[in-house]
Amino acid sequence: MSLLVTGSIGIDNVVTPHGQAEEVLGGSSVYFSFAAVQYTPVRFVGVVGEDFPPAFRDILASHDIDLTGLEVRKGSKTFRWTGKYVGDMAQAQTVGIELNVLAEAAPRVPAAFTDSDVVFLANTHPTLQREMLAQVRSPKLTVCDTIDLWINTERASLTETLKVVNGVIINDAEVRMFTGLSNLVTAGREILKLGPSFVVIKKGEHGALLVTADNATAIPAYPTENVKDPTGAGDSFAGGMLGYLAAEGRFDTAALRRALLRGTVSASFTIEDFSLRRVMNVTRPEIDARVAELIDMLRIE
Amino acid sequence: MSLLVTGSIGIDNVVTPHGQAEEVLGGSSVYFSFAAVQYTPVRFVGVVGEDFPPAFRDILASHDIDLTGLEVRKGSKTFRWTGKYVGDMAQAQTVGIELNVLAEAAPRVPAAFTDSDVVFLANTHPTLQREMLAQVRSPKLTVCDTIDLWINTERASLTETLKVVNGVIINDAEVRMFTGLSNLVTAGREILKLGPSFVVIKKGEHGALLVTADNATAIPAYPTENVKDPTGAGDSFAGGMLGYLAAEGRFDTAALRRALLRGTVSASFTIEDFSLRRVMNVTRPEIDARVAELIDMLRIE
Repeated sequence: MSLLVTGSIGIDNVVTPHGQAEEVLGGSSVYFSFAAVQYTPVRFVGVVGEDFPPAFRDILASHDIDLTGLEVRKGSKTFRWTGKYVGDMAQAQTVGIELNVLAEAAPRVPAAFTDSDVVFLANTHPTLQREMLAQVRSPKLTVCDTIDLWINTERASLTETLKVVNGVIINDAEVRMFTGLSNLVTAGREILKLGPSFVVIKKGEHGALLVTADNATAIPAYPTENVKDPTGAGDSFAGGMLGYLAAEGRFDTAALRRALLRGTVSASFTIEDFSLRRVMNVTRPEIDARVAELIDMLRIE
Repeated sequence: MSLLVTGSIGIDNVVTPHGQAEEVLGGSSVYFSFAAVQYTPVRFVGVVGEDFPPAFRDILASHDIDLTGLEVRKGSKTFRWTGKYVGDMAQAQTVGIELNVLAEAAPRVPAAFTDSDVVFLANTHPTLQREMLAQVRSPKLTVCDTIDLWINTERASLTETLKVVNGVIINDAEVRMFTGLSNLVTAGREILKLGPSFVVIKKGEHGALLVTADNATAIPAYPTENVKDPTGAGDSFAGGMLGYLAAEGRFDTAALRRALLRGTVSASFTIEDFSLRRVMNVTRPEIDARVAELIDMLRIE
């Protein structure tokens, strides 16, 4: 099935206890795409400013990522994020953010993409998420992410977005913030009441939780000592998960559970190096080997 | 194999968002025992004051817990702990603590217990842990727990204790505090350098991590909406784990991984009600059913 993603594209500056990356390609839809493209071609929709380096476009174009939907807007500047991680690197600290073109009108979904089957609305303003989604004619699976900013400032709009998607991929702190509930299974079920048929709660180093009406599946993260930069881990998780589902063409609970492993493995590669360095060069056999390792780890009796 | 536990026995007062428990039986070795006794008889060594309610002794005696090693010390008072949990209940807040008899001389290991095969040194002063261990002639498996108090105040003694045990069961915040390392696999391996052949890192609602020289196994906690009181979850985890290992009589990595599931299931029952109410009455078929459910959850492909 065809897979469309829309979300942020950015220029990142990141410092972690293991080093730093300056002026590198980042953004939610970018991390998503490099994970998803391991399973299926990606239709990419987003907007950057005219300062967007051609070399960054080349990086995206070097993979099976269709950039027909990438708008380079004259007179606008690309989204920029500067962040740092300290200690256990569980939480990014935003040092500086320039929304720039993200604060302007949303990009259009190209005509050639309006028949997309699977749509991932990576984090952006929830009203823009709905506007983008409305341009896709009859998607079979729609999933969104969000961040604390919209929970705090655009709760009503975010609630409307949650009502029109099939699934939500969100992190633990955010689902607690949105629902006011501390138990994650209960919080996930609260989201289901709005309409989605599944919620995936990302817990960083602690793995992920899939909540459906009648099932809760928890998986650990891949245990590793090699963590250099957590930036993009959550987006890579979503990319691995939805890329796999689009390739499989089925979205039942069994498929979702298999996709959880794919997501956690994508994230595990992303965090091994700064920016996209690792996830951009990882091979499908390396991914499959790590999935097999995780399956073996979880096969206990 | 025979199983001996020594640690605290207390009178607890606990408040959580779901209610409260006043003047109830608690303590690390008590929670451990009720989990372990599902698999094997427990040899119990500990000391209480003369204020220890006979009804509490009866609760212990009603199960296959041998109280030969329970000393009721004249003129002394029983250990008391008052705590509360708020929000996501991830961390207990100690409101009041009275060490009482725990600040005095350690109890003796009865002669009949000195041939014990498996020894669990539940949390207490690390010097007392070594003194207790020294009274057991030739144990086949020795495991200890500890808490932040001893890491902060008795680091040298704690290090000596870690050098003489085969395994350590410790929580995530504590292993990070002791090692100064944020990555849990790396922190676990740092403990291994002191001598133990395995470290189990308890992560509460996020499950547990088993670290050996050549393997790291992560398992999630049993996902549940039913959490009333986390008190004793970590001790129940250790009890389920070591009770199972003692019954199995083997301690290789495969057995340790199976034991991890037993530990997480014991903890999952403990937290369903205040004090020992749930873990005291859970049946072995209920435990086995939940272990099977967890195995099924983790069997993804």
